[in-house]
Amino acid sequence: MRGVIMYGPGDVHVVDREDPKIIEPTDAIIRLTATCICGSDLWPYRGIEPVDHTPMGHEYVGVVEEIGADVKTVKPGDFVIGSFVISDNTCEICRAGFQSKCIHAEFVAQTVGTQAEKARIPHADGTLVATPGHPDEDLVPALLAASDVLGTGWYAADAAQAGPGKTVAVVGDGAVGLMAILAARELGAERIIAMSRHPERQKLARYYGATDIVEERGEEGIARIRDLTDGYGAHSVVEAVGTQESFMQAVGATRGGGHMGYVGVNYDVQIPGIQLFFAGIHLLGGPAPVRRFLPDLIDRIWNRTIDPGRVFDLTLPLDQAAEGYKAMNERRAIKTLLTL
Amino acid sequence: MRGVIMYGPGDVHVVDREDPKIIEPTDAIIRLTATCICGSDLWPYRGIEPVDHTPMGHEYVGVVEEIGADVKTVKPGDFVIGSFVISDNTCEICRAGFQSKCIHAEFVAQTVGTQAEKARIPHADGTLVATPGHPDEDLVPALLAASDVLGTGWYAADAAQAGPGKTVAVVGDGAVGLMAILAARELGAERIIAMSRHPERQKLARYYGATDIVEERGEEGIARIRDLTDGYGAHSVVEAVGTQESFMQAVGATRGGGHMGYVGVNYDVQIPGIQLFFAGIHLLGGPAPVRRFLPDLIDRIWNRTIDPGRVFDLTLPLDQAAEGYKAMNERRAIKTLLTL
Repeated sequence: MRGVIMYGPGDVHVVDREDPKIIEPTDAIIRLTATCICGSDLWPYRGIEPVDHTPMGHEYVGVVEEIGADVKTVKPGDFVIGSFVISDNTCEICRAGFQSKCIHAEFVAQTVGTQAEKARIPHADGTLVATPGHPDEDLVPALLAASDVLGTGWYAADAAQAGPGKTVAVVGDGAVGLMAILAARELGAERIIAMSRHPERQKLARYYGATDIVEERGEEGIARIRDLTDGYGAHSVVEAVGTQESFMQAVGATRGGGHMGYVGVNYDVQIPGIQLFFAGIHLLGGPAPVRRFLPDLIDRIWNRTIDPGRVFDLTLPLDQAAEGYKAMNERRAIKTLLTL
Repeated sequence: MRGVIMYGPGDVHVVDREDPKIIEPTDAIIRLTATCICGSDLWPYRGIEPVDHTPMGHEYVGVVEEIGADVKTVKPGDFVIGSFVISDNTCEICRAGFQSKCIHAEFVAQTVGTQAEKARIPHADGTLVATPGHPDEDLVPALLAASDVLGTGWYAADAAQAGPGKTVAVVGDGAVGLMAILAARELGAERIIAMSRHPERQKLARYYGATDIVEERGEEGIARIRDLTDGYGAHSVVEAVGTQESFMQAVGATRGGGHMGYVGVNYDVQIPGIQLFFAGIHLLGGPAPVRRFLPDLIDRIWNRTIDPGRVFDLTLPLDQAAEGYKAMNERRAIKTLLTL
């Protein structure tokens, strides 16, 4: 099969890879309908994370081709979506809703690589969710978004306890930030402040539900959020950038006793303990337990109440993956969908 | 009046200070019945925090002597307890239960100094809570503990969501850690693991409700907690030490999706963002909103269902405060009560 391999930073190739096979009786093999490039794929692309002839990709929708002997909840022919983290969905951690910390968790990015024609998905029963039927073609991007970017943005908004009566501030106007805005709107937030200085993304932020835009960053950005909230700070803040500055901006924008959700941090981020202490906020983050949200997100997409697919502003065939990476790296594209 | 002044690190004196007076109409003047020395008072004592002829003390119980024109909820003659942070108890943050982040918050340690015969308490209506009557003498230490050490330990356990069915690990066997153990028991925790290697404190930990003791620290301590919890980690972890090592030990002992409460960090603690991210835990900490818990804690003490007063293992007259600091600094005493 064809699949993306990143030879080294900035060096992306689509090459022949060995076809995946069932290894464990809990595995399934899927044929991908679509896959995509994640903002986090840019970390190795930019040399921030190590990479050496690495199979890439962790977002996926597709059709089940084959299942292991123990797989019960999906069958060949099903259209399925899975999280970017493998989970058994039965352990205590999964049952508490934190499937990304499952006792059997595996990162698809590390062990599978879904920018490819096919993929072996371990713990298929716990990881994959079948849609009610085969989707109309125009729903495929939205369903694909649920695999990570929508699920991650949704988790960030949920972790920040976005909801009725709340003012939510979202730091970051990338795909995850935009999805957190959509989630905050769906969860009933009263006011949604997008922190963005990119005109095109401000438009999309407003489309997804932002009521206010703040262009300032750092201390100035914090001061603007305080101004907009009677001096208190936002009830709920989503951090969707992952730098030291953006993390501390999010901490500062959260009111005492408020909730901050964060869904990615760079390797060099160091949080000053004393500053976090005196902020007095709830903090929840980590790789999103997308599996918790998938059934609900599939419903909302299937009923066409949400349209997360608009975060894909570039669509290319898998064979042109290198151009997809380049466009995202140069911020010419928010997110690239790869067709098969 | 007599009061404690720390001239510099390790240099404590009891000297004449000016009597406090009503300044704002929301002030009250109290005559202290008892006060005490906090573990955090050892930071300037050890030169970790700046100190220069500073009035000391932030824990207090006493009798109201005089009130400002706007004070409505306490009156001269009332026996009162207050938090170590001043709060109006009416702003949005207070109403959400985070009085230590009140829009009018002031640290008693910075502006009052209650290791003294009298104290001016700003925002008396929001800060002070009157007991049902004048307490029996043997209840005074317990009520004094509510002002900070019990309230802080209680908040830590509450922040860690200690409760029925939960395994709670407490890092630290100082006064706050011991109070967190008591709180976890009162909140109905199934299992309470005290991380302590000090035989006397282990005894007190068991008295307050610890079911298990773990003596190992750091990675070994984390491994022991995992062993005791089927590999998952504790549902709830309280961090009551405040060093880099103890903070990361608490992070590592918390299961994915679990809750960690922390109630003090040293100035040099730096939390590696990526490690916190991949832990995937709820984190809540800061100066405890003791005011939220005071009415409930007073009830429990008044009804003699809890006995937090045993954390005071040294009682001295105010004039011997210097010896009280010395004993705590040398770990000869857990906590020193100062009588007046």
